[in-house]
Amino acid sequence: MVEKEEVLKAHSGGKIEVISKVPTDSVRDLSIYYTPGVAYVSEEIAHNRERVYDYTSKGNTIAIISDGTRILGLGDLGPYAAMPVMEGKALLFKKFGGVDAVPICVDTKDEAEIVRLVKDIAPTFGGINIEDIKSPRCITIAERLSKEIDVPVLHDDRQGTGVVVLAAAINAVKLAGKDRNARIVINGAGAAGYGILERLHHYGFRNIIVVDTKGAIFAGRAENDDLKERIASMTNPQKLAGSLHEVVAGADMLIGVSSRGAFTREDISKMASKPIIFALANPYPEISYAEAREAGAYIVATGRSDTPNQVNNLLAFPGLMRGMLDIRAKALNDEMLDAASMAISKGVGKRLSPEYIIPGILEKSHVTRVVPDVAAAVAEAGMRTGQARVMVAKEQVRKHAKELLKRYGRIERKAIGVRRV
Amino acid sequence: MVEKEEVLKAHSGGKIEVISKVPTDSVRDLSIYYTPGVAYVSEEIAHNRERVYDYTSKGNTIAIISDGTRILGLGDLGPYAAMPVMEGKALLFKKFGGVDAVPICVDTKDEAEIVRLVKDIAPTFGGINIEDIKSPRCITIAERLSKEIDVPVLHDDRQGTGVVVLAAAINAVKLAGKDRNARIVINGAGAAGYGILERLHHYGFRNIIVVDTKGAIFAGRAENDDLKERIASMTNPQKLAGSLHEVVAGADMLIGVSSRGAFTREDISKMASKPIIFALANPYPEISYAEAREAGAYIVATGRSDTPNQVNNLLAFPGLMRGMLDIRAKALNDEMLDAASMAISKGVGKRLSPEYIIPGILEKSHVTRVVPDVAAAVAEAGMRTGQARVMVAKEQVRKHAKELLKRYGRIERKAIGVRRV
Repeated sequence: MVEKEEVLKAHSGGKIEVISKVPTDSVRDLSIYYTPGVAYVSEEIAHNRERVYDYTSKGNTIAIISDGTRILGLGDLGPYAAMPVMEGKALLFKKFGGVDAVPICVDTKDEAEIVRLVKDIAPTFGGINIEDIKSPRCITIAERLSKEIDVPVLHDDRQGTGVVVLAAAINAVKLAGKDRNARIVINGAGAAGYGILERLHHYGFRNIIVVDTKGAIFAGRAENDDLKERIASMTNPQKLAGSLHEVVAGADMLIGVSSRGAFTREDISKMASKPIIFALANPYPEISYAEAREAGAYIVATGRSDTPNQVNNLLAFPGLMRGMLDIRAKALNDEMLDAASMAISKGVGKRLSPEYIIPGILEKSHVTRVVPDVAAAVAEAGMRTGQARVMVAKEQVRKHAKELLKRYGRIERKAIGVRRV
Repeated sequence: MVEKEEVLKAHSGGKIEVISKVPTDSVRDLSIYYTPGVAYVSEEIAHNRERVYDYTSKGNTIAIISDGTRILGLGDLGPYAAMPVMEGKALLFKKFGGVDAVPICVDTKDEAEIVRLVKDIAPTFGGINIEDIKSPRCITIAERLSKEIDVPVLHDDRQGTGVVVLAAAINAVKLAGKDRNARIVINGAGAAGYGILERLHHYGFRNIIVVDTKGAIFAGRAENDDLKERIASMTNPQKLAGSLHEVVAGADMLIGVSSRGAFTREDISKMASKPIIFALANPYPEISYAEAREAGAYIVATGRSDTPNQVNNLLAFPGLMRGMLDIRAKALNDEMLDAASMAISKGVGKRLSPEYIIPGILEKSHVTRVVPDVAAAVAEAGMRTGQARVMVAKEQVRKHAKELLKRYGRIERKAIGVRRV
């Protein structure tokens, strides 16, 4: 692990900056890019609003919205403490998706006020990413926004996680000789747990139980809020009650988005044959890769980079947003999310094995192949389902992603070489 | 003038992008700049909020807020049409002030809603620039924000213009052998007209008349709104009524922030000796430089780059914001605005003459000397008047500005060399 002092020093002065894509050296440059020339552009856009995608940065720029109420695993530290995380996310959007991302950390926890705010600033952006807002508020906010604004809203903690877990689950189930009747237990019912459930359920898995700190969730349970009732309506038809350790008996797959140490060897020993364990708590999983394997797990995935099968949102969100921006998407839908999962799932190619159910984010192929494939698949699904403002050849989206990432690699190398002052 | 088709083509894909200031190549990089390392930074900021200035981009990043209700001279074209202008402004903030600026174009004209929105997003930014919002709403919004948020609010259309005009007026009056008793007529009572009045009045000019489309403004005039009443309370003690052409008689200085052709040769012939004309309508002044000189004007300034004495906000806003960011200012006050005017005014040095009352924005000295001097003067005034979160040596602010502009010049040259895709 890295040391605190080193990290603080490295963050000195912040991590992102805004630069020009055009020359601004001569009077002529300024008269083209600012007054009087820019008036032509404003008039053109006033005449035809969609032109804003042609002539401004809107089409490649997103806002990362957070109120800082659920920063990483740290809880509610507020919008100021959210800033370094959102800047980090912006780096990843650019590096891996060629997407310009602007952190917007907001000083309000009021649901309606956040919705109103994002609605108001939406003209500026080609997409919105909701990040590190406490559940269930984050879900309401993202869903309301999806209905009310005309650019796509990605709720990465939920949808990005769901996309990647579904991709890994498809491959794991295939290897283990299981099918959509597999019995799945999800431990954790926040944005990530709900997001995983959504994707697995939409894909066709129907035998799922979600467990929260009070035990298995079932319809009508006294502790349920709206979100938990929604979860109950999609899961646990037999209304099983009980702790994780009870309901895990006989399960084919156990997925944790909970906390360190939440899974035991005994849990795994109670599962069906060829148990599949996704222990995704970060940085310390519910059970370590080695321990889970020793306890009999056939396939184990974690969030860590130092053991096989790292499940990481970085596989999904850059390509998802890239694909949506390229078609100037109006919204993000199930078909586009599914397309992303399929592209990631196929990304393992012939290397598919219990130690390789998902592509690695640190492999070169992540940027050269996986991200472009995800972008192309998402764009294609968006066009097919009426979410595109423009039609683009799928191959063109793939090529564009590759070129953007290559271009940014060059710019970054050059810019980083210039000393900060 | 540039051609429409060329301008549209040049704007293709937008003008700004977000890049990393730090390397993001290795697992180790990501573990420092994103998870798990970034958690140290969030905790540090949660513990001490002011640290957000040390460890994030907040301290060098501003939002440019517009609702698009008064875009350039084009009127209310809405937030989408505002985008290319705000991106252009962002380029100028970076190029001439080393400031990272993010356009935020908002889809509401509701005053309270805009105030609320900017208040909510303020944690993200080290300063706010209000741009191209219709008067008098822009003034109410900027003034309310100045009271309600803890970062400085620059209303450039008003304050930037006022700062530069005061700088030019000080030198013009000196050359003409006039003083603070000079009789001044300002034609135009929007944000710019009011901004000019504010600065001149605060400097000590007391013999001012402001004229709007209904004629001279005086206290109790039937057409007055709140802003016009405020203007009346600072001007026209004799309550003169009448058109511009009437009240200009005997004036020492005539300042136009109105429209092409608003001033005539006859107006100038009616003025006191050594008349001073600032014809600032853009791109076509109230009277051309040549015509005003022929009509007997001793000093003429316009907004144009092709005649002497170009009055342009670019002399003020980059340095103003630079100085404020360097002291992590809480607010912008009269003393800081005055300091900016003085620095610009002194910027002409020994070259002071009727053809050179203000430094040129296209001279090399603009970036090597004027901007750094303005930044240093503003920072010093801010520290002196209790608006600074940190104390910095004035010389250090000057040096920092020079280094930032030099650094950005290098980055821009390198990045522009990488082909857009």
